Amino acid sequence: MPLSPAFIDAVLAGDARAIARAISLIEDEAADAAALISHIFPRTGRAYLIGITGAPGTGKSTLVDALTGEIRRAGLTVGVIAVDPTSPFTGGAILGDRVRMTGHSADPGVYIRSMATRGHLGGLSRTTSDVALVLDAAGKDIVIIETVGVGQDEVDIVRTADVSIVVVVPGAGDDVQAIKAGIMEIGDIFVVNKADREGADRAAQAIAANLSLGDAAAGASRKDDWKPPIVKTEANRAIGVDEVWRQVGRFREHSAAQQASRRTERQRVRLRELLARQLVQRVEASLPTGEIERMAERVANRELDPYAAVSELITRGTATVGRVPRRTEATGADPADSR
Amino acid sequence: MPLSPAFIDAVLAGDARAIARAISLIEDEAADAAALISHIFPRTGRAYLIGITGAPGTGKSTLVDALTGEIRRAGLTVGVIAVDPTSPFTGGAILGDRVRMTGHSADPGVYIRSMATRGHLGGLSRTTSDVALVLDAAGKDIVIIETVGVGQDEVDIVRTADVSIVVVVPGAGDDVQAIKAGIMEIGDIFVVNKADREGADRAAQAIAANLSLGDAAAGASRKDDWKPPIVKTEANRAIGVDEVWRQVGRFREHSAAQQASRRTERQRVRLRELLARQLVQRVEASLPTGEIERMAERVANRELDPYAAVSELITRGTATVGRVPRRTEATGADPADSR
Repeated sequence: MPLSPAFIDAVLAGDARAIARAISLIEDEAADAAALISHIFPRTGRAYLIGITGAPGTGKSTLVDALTGEIRRAGLTVGVIAVDPTSPFTGGAILGDRVRMTGHSADPGVYIRSMATRGHLGGLSRTTSDVALVLDAAGKDIVIIETVGVGQDEVDIVRTADVSIVVVVPGAGDDVQAIKAGIMEIGDIFVVNKADREGADRAAQAIAANLSLGDAAAGASRKDDWKPPIVKTEANRAIGVDEVWRQVGRFREHSAAQQASRRTERQRVRLRELLARQLVQRVEASLPTGEIERMAERVANRELDPYAAVSELITRGTATVGRVPRRTEATGADPADSR
Repeated sequence: MPLSPAFIDAVLAGDARAIARAISLIEDEAADAAALISHIFPRTGRAYLIGITGAPGTGKSTLVDALTGEIRRAGLTVGVIAVDPTSPFTGGAILGDRVRMTGHSADPGVYIRSMATRGHLGGLSRTTSDVALVLDAAGKDIVIIETVGVGQDEVDIVRTADVSIVVVVPGAGDDVQAIKAGIMEIGDIFVVNKADREGADRAAQAIAANLSLGDAAAGASRKDDWKPPIVKTEANRAIGVDEVWRQVGRFREHSAAQQASRRTERQRVRLRELLARQLVQRVEASLPTGEIERMAERVANRELDPYAAVSELITRGTATVGRVPRRTEATGADPADSR
C-alpha cells in the first residue's frame, strides 16, 4: 500500500526514504504513479527548475555538485536529477552509478537521484517531469536536472526548465562541432568549464560569436531581450560557480514574466508524450499479445509497408481506446514494454 | 503532382533530383510521403545499413567521408544520411550545413543528405528509416546513417542498423565519461579515430576493458558470439579506414543469421513511433484547435494534473480515432506540429 496517506504525507514532508520510494514508483512506471502525481500535484509549482546540459566530459556533474553547494549556502534546499545515458543491454550505466555529490550525501537539504535514459517509451521528459514534481512537492526550493544534451528528449527537458544552462569545455574537438551540437540556442546561461585549460577564452568568444550569428539567423534577438551571459568556471575547485548562481538569480528576475509560458510549454511537451504513450498502450492492450512484433516481422519481410501496417493496427486496435482507463494503464504499468 | 509514375520511376532509377524531392516529402511530412513509401517499399530491403555514432568532435563525418571512398573503390554505391542536431530556434544547424563530403560531390554513385533532428514528433527514427528506404529503393548498395549518439532516438537508429559502428577519440575529457555515454554496448565495431593523438592505445584498452566488463555485467557474452573489433583510424588521412570496411564485411558475414531479427527490431521501433504519432494526430484532429495547448495551460496553472488532463483528452478525442485515415493524416501532414 504505497499510496497510504502516511506515505503521501511523508513525501510532502520531504522524508528522503519516502521520496526515494515515490521516485521508484515513477521510474518503474508502477500503477500507482499516476495516483501519486494526482495527490501531490496541488502542492507543486513552487520549485525553480534549473536544466543543465552539455556533452559527456564537460564536467556537468562536478558543476552541479559545486552549484548545489552555492545554493545551500544561500539557505535553499536542492533536489538533483541526473539523467544518465544507459546501456541497452544491462539497463544501467556500464560502470555503475558514478561516484558523485560526495560533499552533500549527508546533507538533509539535498536530495540526489540518478536516472537511466533507457526504456522511457512514454518519454524521458515525462519521467523526469514527474520526478521533478515529487522533489517540488517534497519542498525542494531548487530542482536541478542534468542531461547529456544531444537527443531531442534531453534537449526538451532542459529547454523547458525555468532556466537552461549549457556547459562546454575548451578545445573539445574542434569548436564548430561542439557548437553545432544543437544545444547552443537553448542556453540562457553558458558555462565554459575547465577554464584553466588552454582555449577557454577562444571557446567563450566562439559562443559569443555564435550567439550573434544565431540572432542574425533568427532575424532578431531573443524574444525576452536576455543576453545570455558566458561564465568561466573551474567547477572542480568551485571557481566561478558563485557567478553561475548569481546569473541564475538575474535570469529568474528578468524572466519572471515569461516563466508561465515556459511552464505551459513544458506541460505541452509532456501531455503529448503521455497522450502518445497511453494511446499506444490502449491500442496494444486491445490487440493479441505480440501483435506489433508480428506486424514488424511482416514489414521486415516486405509483406506490407509500415504505413499499411499501422493503419491496420489502428483499425483493429481502437475498439477499446475510448474507454475509461483501467488503473494499471494510467501510468503504463507494463514492465515488458521497453523499447 | 509529385507522385506521378514518372517521379516514382525516377526515384527507383536513382535520379538524384528525384531522390532529393522524395526525401523532402518525408522530411516535410508531406501528405504524399506515406503513398511514396508504399510505392517503393517492395523495392527495398536490398541495401546494407551501416549506423555510425559518436560524440561531437570525434570526426564521424570525416570517417564517413573516407569510408564512402572505400566503399566506392569496392564498386558499390553509397547513400549517406547525416543526422545533425539542430537549433530549436532556427530549425537548422546554426552554422548552416557543414562543409563535408567534398571528395564525393561529383560522384553519381554517392548520394548525401543532412537531416535535422528537430521537429520529428513522430520520431527521428521514423524519418531516417523512411529516408533510408528511399536510398535503398534508389539502388544504393550501402546506406550509412551517422548520428550523434546520445539521445534515445539516435541510439535506436544506430542500434537497429545492420551494423553499428561507435567512434571515440583519445583523451576526450576523462575516459570514463566517454565510455558512459551509453553507446558502448551497441557497437559491433569500435573506431578510435584521431589515433595519432596521445592516448589512442589507452582509449582502445579502455574500450576492450569495458567490453569484458559489459560481458561480465550481462552475465554472458553477446548472443551472437561476435567479439567487437577495435580499429584505430586517422580518418582525415584515410588511415585505417580500409580496416573498418573490412570489419564491416566480416560482421556482415558473421551476422547473416541475425540480420533478419535486427531488421524486425528496426521495424518494431518504427511501427510504435508511427502508431504513437498517428494516434495523437487523430485524437488532436478530433479536438478543437489548440486544445492540447489550453490543457497544458490548465495543468501549468495547477487546475488539473497531467494524468487527469490526458484522460480527458482521450475521452473527448477518441470518437474518430478508429476511422480510416484521411490521406493527409497518413504521414502526419501538420506543419504546425513541431514539438
